[in-house]
Amino acid sequence: MPHRRRLVALVPLVIPLLLQAQAPAAGQGAKARAESVARHTPHEAAIRQWLDRWAVAFRARDVDAIMALYAPDVVAFDLVAPLQYEGREKYRKDYADFLAQYEGPLEVEMRDVHIDAHGDLAVLRALERIGGTLKGGQRTEFWMRATSVFRRVGGRWLDVHDHLSVPVDFETGKAQLALRP
Amino acid sequence: MPHRRRLVALVPLVIPLLLQAQAPAAGQGAKARAESVARHTPHEAAIRQWLDRWAVAFRARDVDAIMALYAPDVVAFDLVAPLQYEGREKYRKDYADFLAQYEGPLEVEMRDVHIDAHGDLAVLRALERIGGTLKGGQRTEFWMRATSVFRRVGGRWLDVHDHLSVPVDFETGKAQLALRP
Repeated sequence: MPHRRRLVALVPLVIPLLLQAQAPAAGQGAKARAESVARHTPHEAAIRQWLDRWAVAFRARDVDAIMALYAPDVVAFDLVAPLQYEGREKYRKDYADFLAQYEGPLEVEMRDVHIDAHGDLAVLRALERIGGTLKGGQRTEFWMRATSVFRRVGGRWLDVHDHLSVPVDFETGKAQLALRP
Repeated sequence: MPHRRRLVALVPLVIPLLLQAQAPAAGQGAKARAESVARHTPHEAAIRQWLDRWAVAFRARDVDAIMALYAPDVVAFDLVAPLQYEGREKYRKDYADFLAQYEGPLEVEMRDVHIDAHGDLAVLRALERIGGTLKGGQRTEFWMRATSVFRRVGGRWLDVHDHLSVPVDFETGKAQLALRP
């Protein structure tokens, strides 16, 4: 299945508020988002706002808007080779390739989201389910692990490091794409 | 190769100062370590000291000393399933299983080590080569990606999150253990 080659590349962060992302101007969505933010510490709220912005850009397949959320010197350990993507331009191409594979909306679900923050540094980890329909109609879904690091520069939080992966079964050498939390 | 099942589990952090770790009481090693620390910011130096302590414990196969460097609520995304290890006791068993597989010293090499720190939070990412000889004489070596998060509690830095992985080739479904940086 060559068209699956880059299927799971570059899905670094997803949010549980997709309905809000679909209707960002709706009063109900804005109210729910404000309440969501109010439940968290200021730093956690800032990172969750980053996730909101990311989701809007991601669902719109707006690569420029997505990459505006990353630092120029981001280093990503993606699900696919190479071992690391150094810099926003290389990571951007990975994103573009990924987004071009799907048709219709992506499904995203997060579990065990944890945010640590201090000063101008924040870290997020989560388990993420990615689902969707590839061009051609093939259904796909899997769970992965995501760790992201953020730095606040000039008042804006930027992603400086993504690490995305699935476990490996060393008896078979296979990636374990059917695991569930 | 069933004995490879847990081969690459639980090698979260390695250091480039193994000779020092082998001779911790030697004046030359202590001097070199002090100079290494002096080159870095206080936070980076603290994380590198954590790595020194980890390496001494790791080479001695001292699971108690290793786990004393982790927070009780550590959550690890390891190379092998499950998706996550929640808590020090589960991660400890993974470590013990890993250490029991080798004979003789492990080889560790780090590339592109990067440390971000602010206040009581620090993050490390690196590419790591792990090599060694399994019981039975089989030689093994591979490169992986490592991201670790640290929290300072009562003046001590503890690891609260490890994420270890290798990329996946989605054409074959195989883990890519032969990649080099």
